[in-house]
Amino acid sequence: MENGSTLRKRWGFRSNPELNMATDNTVRSVLFMLLSKLNNSDTRPVIPLGHGDPSAFPCFRTTQIAEDAIVHSIRSATFNGYVPPVGILPARRAVAEYLSQDLPYALSPDDVFLTLGCTQAIQTVVTVLSIPKANILLPKPGFPYYEAIAKSCHLEVRHFDLLPHKDWEVDLDSVNALADENTVAMVIINPGNPCGNVFTHQHLQKVAETAKNLGILVISDEVYDHIAFGKNPFVPMAVFASTVPVITLGSISKRWIVPGWRLGWLVINDRNGILKEHGIIDCITAYLNISSDAPTFIQGAVPDILSKTKVDFFSKIVNIIKEAANICYEGIQDVPGIICPSKPEGSMFVMVKLDLSVFEDIEDDVDFCVKLAKEESVIILPGNCVGLNNWLRVTFAIEHSALEEGINRLKAFCARHAKKP
Amino acid sequence: MENGSTLRKRWGFRSNPELNMATDNTVRSVLFMLLSKLNNSDTRPVIPLGHGDPSAFPCFRTTQIAEDAIVHSIRSATFNGYVPPVGILPARRAVAEYLSQDLPYALSPDDVFLTLGCTQAIQTVVTVLSIPKANILLPKPGFPYYEAIAKSCHLEVRHFDLLPHKDWEVDLDSVNALADENTVAMVIINPGNPCGNVFTHQHLQKVAETAKNLGILVISDEVYDHIAFGKNPFVPMAVFASTVPVITLGSISKRWIVPGWRLGWLVINDRNGILKEHGIIDCITAYLNISSDAPTFIQGAVPDILSKTKVDFFSKIVNIIKEAANICYEGIQDVPGIICPSKPEGSMFVMVKLDLSVFEDIEDDVDFCVKLAKEESVIILPGNCVGLNNWLRVTFAIEHSALEEGINRLKAFCARHAKKP
Repeated sequence: MENGSTLRKRWGFRSNPELNMATDNTVRSVLFMLLSKLNNSDTRPVIPLGHGDPSAFPCFRTTQIAEDAIVHSIRSATFNGYVPPVGILPARRAVAEYLSQDLPYALSPDDVFLTLGCTQAIQTVVTVLSIPKANILLPKPGFPYYEAIAKSCHLEVRHFDLLPHKDWEVDLDSVNALADENTVAMVIINPGNPCGNVFTHQHLQKVAETAKNLGILVISDEVYDHIAFGKNPFVPMAVFASTVPVITLGSISKRWIVPGWRLGWLVINDRNGILKEHGIIDCITAYLNISSDAPTFIQGAVPDILSKTKVDFFSKIVNIIKEAANICYEGIQDVPGIICPSKPEGSMFVMVKLDLSVFEDIEDDVDFCVKLAKEESVIILPGNCVGLNNWLRVTFAIEHSALEEGINRLKAFCARHAKKP
Repeated sequence: MENGSTLRKRWGFRSNPELNMATDNTVRSVLFMLLSKLNNSDTRPVIPLGHGDPSAFPCFRTTQIAEDAIVHSIRSATFNGYVPPVGILPARRAVAEYLSQDLPYALSPDDVFLTLGCTQAIQTVVTVLSIPKANILLPKPGFPYYEAIAKSCHLEVRHFDLLPHKDWEVDLDSVNALADENTVAMVIINPGNPCGNVFTHQHLQKVAETAKNLGILVISDEVYDHIAFGKNPFVPMAVFASTVPVITLGSISKRWIVPGWRLGWLVINDRNGILKEHGIIDCITAYLNISSDAPTFIQGAVPDILSKTKVDFFSKIVNIIKEAANICYEGIQDVPGIICPSKPEGSMFVMVKLDLSVFEDIEDDVDFCVKLAKEESVIILPGNCVGLNNWLRVTFAIEHSALEEGINRLKAFCARHAKKP
């Protein structure tokens, strides 16, 4: 092997620094960093409060109907080949029918684009909207994958606030203040990741009117659709598609507890045909044409998964999550140095604030999470990753006894690091 | 609905014209255009000689071992969750072992990145190499997905020739003439798409030495690995990984006849650690961190698929394809106006040249293919799409009787459009 400096001169390729920068603060990369801090000599199980994936716990096993649908699809040997980039018609129709149940109008299969989980839906819509000088409005706190994709597409990001003491509603004044003639869209995530809130019908209407006045599209990330267990029922943003064009992003990942199946959708809700007229729909098709598709036999299983799953399965899952949210919220009340401004009522997360003055030797949220991983084998996402320094995003959607154990360890950790009186 | 001009002023979003331009000449978009030309009143079955996907024909059904592996994986309920962006370890290890069988050294699982088919592997390597001012050398004819991704990443493309009268070998003089200090890589596709050739060991060695002298990486697209049935055995480019860094792209799509399963890989073959030193490997990891993953339960099935499939299955498939290549080659000899310079010996394709002077009313290859679709319900890809005007790319990998029927229709079409004596 030759020495480094010679090589650096000789070979013509270089790594892409923009790509490295765009991806260094995703949930995945931060969790990976935390996992690397675990103390291998700690024999206790790791408590994963860092990500929205409870699939490893037996009580969260998906419905047999979904498994059967995949098996049936693979055994049919009719879903092994290439498919159109937008997805196969029966699957698109099934998604249209599934979503139309909650809408005052019927979606058409042509409104539906199948994607590889919700992440490819995010990637698609953000890439399509990335034209020179454009900007997009994202929530703070939010889901950092939006920022990562926007950065990789050179789309400017501006952040509006979610208001912790108003059930994490959108600060519409900040939306109005941020938008200008180059703003193309605003993103909402409902039920909320990372806040665990569920927007009211009335608030969504105000979001729609604000966006309409600004002439921007609403991207509604509803990957946690129907995971709502508090005072507000889940209302799809698409209810307001006569007011403003809405692109809904969703997936079977969360409601069916199968995030690894990578089946999602991007859906056009646009009663006035504005997106079509502006060429957005053709551009989505163009982008999907050079993107990877969801595997065909998974697409083949979609009609059965969406139409045959029993309501009992959904209520069982939501009840487990609701109970977990209670355990988490109540448990955190007793933890010194952690404040929870708003009880979670949806999704799988709650945002809690660190009172650093309580602690002896905790520098910030990242330091907190690194030490927690190291000392207690508990993984929690630093709020920094989702846009709020010195907060934490806690996932409560895990098996109850594991959650209780996690909160006990959190309590012990905080007590150990508290300033001595 | 308001009128167009008002809307155009009112709404802030626009479609992304670069994206539309990047994707308008992919195999998928051209085939889609041709399918739209079919005459619906023609009751004969459509003969698909346009793409490398014979999965719809019963004789090309995949091995039951692969289907069983998926079923077992889904029934285990252990592969429903999120996974690391690079893929799960058992699957990476299985790919490393599978590929090492043909190499003089053993790959490590860390050399393997799982991707969504070979297309995501292409997307990954091209994106990672896209730094300002860089250029990449692509074969002409080639696979237009490379051009589409390069365009979407603003990576300059330069084309070197494949030589039809030298078994479609790389014109190494043109490679040397095109490369400069900003050239980062050259791509070869072996076995060849669209040419149906298989490079000799000796020629691959020359490719390696040329690339080494130029200081560029070799990207070896081996999605048709082992589909070789002529005088030259398939040799992986990675055999020369001591001479030059090689990134191998592959998938189970073709050898197992499951292109819709979307399971592929990107593999680092770099005996001198040059790619690692240049940050390319970290950058691949970073890009996969913001990309969609292959579904977890498909990854879970990879060890069984790769290690348990019997050699009988592979030889059965290759024999059917070999026989089909003969039928195609012999059949085309009798078609006036179509010349085949080189008998196919691998992959699923052959390139044939149109002699336009023979025809009365055929303008070019696209016109030929449009009229053929319309009049004979036969789909063939115009050479224009793969970089050679007035050539055709013909897929022979379909069921034999359908192929014979297709060639008969092609013959009738050419006779009907020939100049009258």
